[in-house]
Amino acid sequence: MTNTTQIVLASRPVGEPTHENFRTETLALPELADGQVLLETQYLSLDPYMRGRMNDAKSYAASVEIGDPMVGGTVSRVVESRFDSLRAGDAVLSYAGWQTHSIEEGKNLAKVDDSVPLSQYLGVLGMPAMTAYTGLLNIGKPQSGETVVVAAATGAVGVVVGQIAKLKGARAVGIAGGPEKVAYLKEIGFDAAVDHRADDFVQQLEAATPDGIDVYFENVGGKVWEAVLPRMNDFGRVPLCGLIASYNDTALPEGPNRVPVTMRTILQKSLTVRGYLVREYNDQLAQFRGEMQEWIAAGKITYREDVTEGLENAIDAFIGLLRGENFGKAVVKVA
Amino acid sequence: MTNTTQIVLASRPVGEPTHENFRTETLALPELADGQVLLETQYLSLDPYMRGRMNDAKSYAASVEIGDPMVGGTVSRVVESRFDSLRAGDAVLSYAGWQTHSIEEGKNLAKVDDSVPLSQYLGVLGMPAMTAYTGLLNIGKPQSGETVVVAAATGAVGVVVGQIAKLKGARAVGIAGGPEKVAYLKEIGFDAAVDHRADDFVQQLEAATPDGIDVYFENVGGKVWEAVLPRMNDFGRVPLCGLIASYNDTALPEGPNRVPVTMRTILQKSLTVRGYLVREYNDQLAQFRGEMQEWIAAGKITYREDVTEGLENAIDAFIGLLRGENFGKAVVKVA
Repeated sequence: MTNTTQIVLASRPVGEPTHENFRTETLALPELADGQVLLETQYLSLDPYMRGRMNDAKSYAASVEIGDPMVGGTVSRVVESRFDSLRAGDAVLSYAGWQTHSIEEGKNLAKVDDSVPLSQYLGVLGMPAMTAYTGLLNIGKPQSGETVVVAAATGAVGVVVGQIAKLKGARAVGIAGGPEKVAYLKEIGFDAAVDHRADDFVQQLEAATPDGIDVYFENVGGKVWEAVLPRMNDFGRVPLCGLIASYNDTALPEGPNRVPVTMRTILQKSLTVRGYLVREYNDQLAQFRGEMQEWIAAGKITYREDVTEGLENAIDAFIGLLRGENFGKAVVKVA
Repeated sequence: MTNTTQIVLASRPVGEPTHENFRTETLALPELADGQVLLETQYLSLDPYMRGRMNDAKSYAASVEIGDPMVGGTVSRVVESRFDSLRAGDAVLSYAGWQTHSIEEGKNLAKVDDSVPLSQYLGVLGMPAMTAYTGLLNIGKPQSGETVVVAAATGAVGVVVGQIAKLKGARAVGIAGGPEKVAYLKEIGFDAAVDHRADDFVQQLEAATPDGIDVYFENVGGKVWEAVLPRMNDFGRVPLCGLIASYNDTALPEGPNRVPVTMRTILQKSLTVRGYLVREYNDQLAQFRGEMQEWIAAGKITYREDVTEGLENAIDAFIGLLRGENFGKAVVKVA
């Protein structure tokens, strides 16, 4: 019999999550049934969308129920298998959530190639990079010579957006918090990078986008969106996959109500604002994996991970992620 | 020598335009040069976008300068011609603005077929209907069985949106101000119509869209947008061609700032919000005219005009248009 240690949702956060919203439990897993496998979590992905799952409010995906383990993508190893196509030692992509072990139906698991670092399947070969790839290419459609701006640019999604924009011949401008992240973006080939925490953020953005902005990859919202909007060019495109700036909000910001300005700008500049979830493009998974692996092998896409050791530290890492304190793709090394 | 009587912009309005913002002048037109024609305005189109041209603010088109005639589409007759392809008596589509006569370069004029009522070229065969046709078909892309909602639905654009939606097999729901307009929409074949002036507007809209909204054709903004947004279905499309509700605003509305709700809804429902100007689709003019003429001849598209007699009454008619007081396409019979 195997035990699993889980971090479960203890209560729904009001504003920023705290330790009180989580609880750690250890329980015994049952015996495997036919078709099932026992997994040991190797890496757990931490992603901003998880904050939405902690709410009761209707979202694009079901809430986590109180008492249930927090959800999340994982890379796991098979410990024991009663599913024909998997055997002990295999590495699989799973959605086991915040726990050390789990039992899954074998047919729901994707076996992954052990020759690359496993954590890559949660980042640069996983959901965040695929969000970047599909949103930028299907909605943003950057053309050679155009300017692409991306917020949270050192994050798991943003860093891939900027580098693919470069590969497509566009000018890539990253927005990030703090001088260290700004320096990193320039180092890995962004044409410019600006610090949204700086007092002169708006002026920095202006200087970094002398020809305006053709594609704004939106995953932040808030004041970054307000600064970007007036700089959009006619026929600009805004793939919208996240709004981390408001995930912890407990009420709408104070007025005035800026919806009329937003809509007027979309109208006057013939902009396209398009929300999307990565699953819309699931049929592009093979193409994404193929191209990314090529680009990584050729050194054209670099990335950074922010690895937290131990499931017990996942809560602090997640709270930090929502504050923008991570530097690179946030993962927890569980095993 | 021919005189023209013009209504010129006397001052820029603050909020709703008043008579003080306009001035009527009569002046002598010069002799024709080679290639020019003298026109007598038959009909002048009144359209919401003209309010934007009265501002100094940067918009998608140049402002009207103080002292210049108000701009506007016209159908005119040639009085005298020094342009080979036009002769006296010909009817032409022009952009002569708010005046009785004008001199134009012949090459800028489109001769129109005299066999249909000339005012149609400003409405159901003109820019407003083409705005409806191109925005609905290129951006809205209504599918059979889907629900299309259009605001200002008895207006020159809205009434065409709803009827084309029906022709494409969709359910058409119109939003208009007052019971008379609502009754008219039902009479001409809208599946449902709701009154945005009614206290129970939100409930009316809910009852009229039991399966949610797949396409919202936006030309109004304000509280109508707020009521529609929560009812949008996943992958809904929002062609955005106007925001008449805010054209007379002198300041942003009071808070809270609802931008985060708007963006969050676009994200969670994978919506497409796309601003556009009809000129983007100029290459679809022939196709538009052909299809519309067929539909009108077959009785599949009906429409209504709100005709004001005499250029001197254009100002009141325009102020009324911005208040939603017109009932059908607003035109001024000038000649």
